[in-house]
Amino acid sequence: MTSDNGAAPQQDVLLHTSALHGSLEDASLSSMNFLNEIAQRYPDAVSFAPGRPYEGFFETDLVHDYLRRFEQYLREEKGYDEEQVRRVLFQYGRTKGIIHELIARHLELTEGITVDPDSVVVTSGCQEAMFLVLRALRRDERDVVLAVSPQYVGFTGAARLLDLPVLEVAGGDRGVDLESVADVVAGARARGLRPRALYLVPDFSNPSGVSLDVDTRHALLDLADRLDLLLLEDNPYGYFSADGERLPTLKSLDTKHRVVHLGSFAKTGLPGARIGYAVADQPVTGADGGTGLLADQLSKIKSMLTVNTSPIAQAVIAGKLLTYGCDLRRANEREIALYRENLERLLDRLARHFPPEGGSGVSWNVPRGGFFLVVTVPFEADEKLLETSARDHGVLWTPMRHFSTDPAALCQIRLSFSLVTGERIDRGVERFADLVARRAG
Amino acid sequence: MTSDNGAAPQQDVLLHTSALHGSLEDASLSSMNFLNEIAQRYPDAVSFAPGRPYEGFFETDLVHDYLRRFEQYLREEKGYDEEQVRRVLFQYGRTKGIIHELIARHLELTEGITVDPDSVVVTSGCQEAMFLVLRALRRDERDVVLAVSPQYVGFTGAARLLDLPVLEVAGGDRGVDLESVADVVAGARARGLRPRALYLVPDFSNPSGVSLDVDTRHALLDLADRLDLLLLEDNPYGYFSADGERLPTLKSLDTKHRVVHLGSFAKTGLPGARIGYAVADQPVTGADGGTGLLADQLSKIKSMLTVNTSPIAQAVIAGKLLTYGCDLRRANEREIALYRENLERLLDRLARHFPPEGGSGVSWNVPRGGFFLVVTVPFEADEKLLETSARDHGVLWTPMRHFSTDPAALCQIRLSFSLVTGERIDRGVERFADLVARRAG
Repeated sequence: MTSDNGAAPQQDVLLHTSALHGSLEDASLSSMNFLNEIAQRYPDAVSFAPGRPYEGFFETDLVHDYLRRFEQYLREEKGYDEEQVRRVLFQYGRTKGIIHELIARHLELTEGITVDPDSVVVTSGCQEAMFLVLRALRRDERDVVLAVSPQYVGFTGAARLLDLPVLEVAGGDRGVDLESVADVVAGARARGLRPRALYLVPDFSNPSGVSLDVDTRHALLDLADRLDLLLLEDNPYGYFSADGERLPTLKSLDTKHRVVHLGSFAKTGLPGARIGYAVADQPVTGADGGTGLLADQLSKIKSMLTVNTSPIAQAVIAGKLLTYGCDLRRANEREIALYRENLERLLDRLARHFPPEGGSGVSWNVPRGGFFLVVTVPFEADEKLLETSARDHGVLWTPMRHFSTDPAALCQIRLSFSLVTGERIDRGVERFADLVARRAG
Repeated sequence: MTSDNGAAPQQDVLLHTSALHGSLEDASLSSMNFLNEIAQRYPDAVSFAPGRPYEGFFETDLVHDYLRRFEQYLREEKGYDEEQVRRVLFQYGRTKGIIHELIARHLELTEGITVDPDSVVVTSGCQEAMFLVLRALRRDERDVVLAVSPQYVGFTGAARLLDLPVLEVAGGDRGVDLESVADVVAGARARGLRPRALYLVPDFSNPSGVSLDVDTRHALLDLADRLDLLLLEDNPYGYFSADGERLPTLKSLDTKHRVVHLGSFAKTGLPGARIGYAVADQPVTGADGGTGLLADQLSKIKSMLTVNTSPIAQAVIAGKLLTYGCDLRRANEREIALYRENLERLLDRLARHFPPEGGSGVSWNVPRGGFFLVVTVPFEADEKLLETSARDHGVLWTPMRHFSTDPAALCQIRLSFSLVTGERIDRGVERFADLVARRAG
């Protein structure tokens, strides 16, 4: 076909990734795609791979119940008439969200975090909250952020979209190595860079499963103050303590607005609502000398990114909050018990298959809750081995090398115990032991 | 309070916008905030300002009905068992979305657009779709995009978040000035820049109300081909034709993958679902030589931005699509009729108050549908005048200067006729005429 106007023949558009954003050529993204793809190719494998919440308690009627509960709240607690109820649920709405008051109540009740609801920004999943904060903090190419290693890939991915470098900080046994934080900040400043914030998951971290003890939390807040660094506290797993102990969040200890608290309802509410939030109560002064909240700056960015978060999706989460008196620990009693059982069973089966005296060279950490633990094996655990594991042994896991540049990670794997239960755990560990035996033999 | 370790006293965090992303200091964002704020201060004013769909047909039960309808579809058409239904609705899901097949069916039926469902990316509102496309296309500081003037602020906002310059192209009476497109592209290339795409709303544009005729559509496709430019076609208002004529979308005329089609269900489905999509069937080759779809590149970006779009929100829109046989024109018969009446009434009242022989110096364009028209007045229409208009005359509108650098825009205002109906329109035009009389007198 030639063009109507006698010009050169029309050509089909053909783009090349080298003409698109650099993130699209990153090896890490291809790796994540490979992990997803292998899970699809071996659907019958026992999978310790995904960090998804347990599905067995989902009920379709719940969505309807939760929506009705929120409608009732709007009528009875907020005093809205039917027209207002419909407008809140269906029309374009407040950029920062419509369930901020319930989230603030929930944070006060279950996390000891007392904040003005106006400092809460409700987002399309916690991933958007991370992006909003990073977009606000990256002014130009001198800005950098820090993240505790091993790192959550969602955070590094959001930073990558902004061409924002993430400097790795050692995690170690305490969950964050404070000396490493100070060293990385000093090194960056010496190179003319501006370290803006440190990202971490203080409770049952993804992927390591490690938690910070109380002393480390206080020491980290002090250090952040001395270094003039914000802390980005991501808290998806806090409720899922195996021993019932709930350590105070960094935000609840924060008297100086050092902490931006990132919340997710994907594990405690319903993943399919895709509702997260940021608590950003930092004061911000503008060119006009007026002072507002960082939340309002995030809101401006959100207005250009997703406009506002679906009020219908927000209503589902609000309905669940209301049903349980804003206490999602109560709402998750069955889940908390199940994840504890899973963790205990997984630890038990690992101990049976790899006894200390057996000389297998296999070891693992013992998290106090959450979704993940890390196994160290006496050989490299890469994508090729994962494929062998899936094909020949029917068991899936995640190579730790995706989360860290630490050489130790080359021989480590992440096992998730949130989605797989009971005898599937036994079978999975058996199969994993077969893989280890074959690899060692 | 002093720090525990004897270091300098802890200070409260205080951020300054000069240390945050430049978009947060933009005058345009402050302007949008001013417009929202003034609407809140004068809630009783007749408002021709917001581009929101009519609210009178919202019904809370519909959300439940639509959700049930989609559940039924999963069971009956997809053959899913209850566990699969629950997983699709509630668990993390496919990054590109779960209603892509229904969207493809809808595009085929009502827009004459035939695409592989795999080229559809379902997004958290059309705003996210714009951001994904722009993020993919901006590799570095040499990349720029073009937009027809006057411009939709959502597009310029998304570009601003990426530090991606938007070059203004003249719109003129035909909706796009092709010479201007060629000139701007040539000029940019001469400066070493890479013009990647031209953004426009071909049907009943926001804010001008202007549509491209069929010849212009063909000519624009040819030109894009010759200039090797992508076209970003945004189509929120296409159904809302006042005279019943529906011109072919650019995408339906596109035989060479020149067009990325951006869709929104905010006006045709339900704003509160926040569901939009991109049709991105452009072939993309990677470093490995393999070829995929641009949609898959957008999906990778989405995985780092919002992970996936709420399946519950998607289900609501899918339920509406299914209820009306994937024909949202049928679903919107009442809305289409109402917007036509509103437009006719607004034109009639304008003609009564500002007769051609009256010498008022007030004129306006006559769109063939959509939500907006543009009025030209014989004085500058700025924020100060808007405040006067709201306070003293009880009528709200939007200064066109927010959408264009064209000096003509200084004396123009946008009137939206989607949310205001019947006698409120009469009253609004009356009040506006009072403002004009006062300003002229």
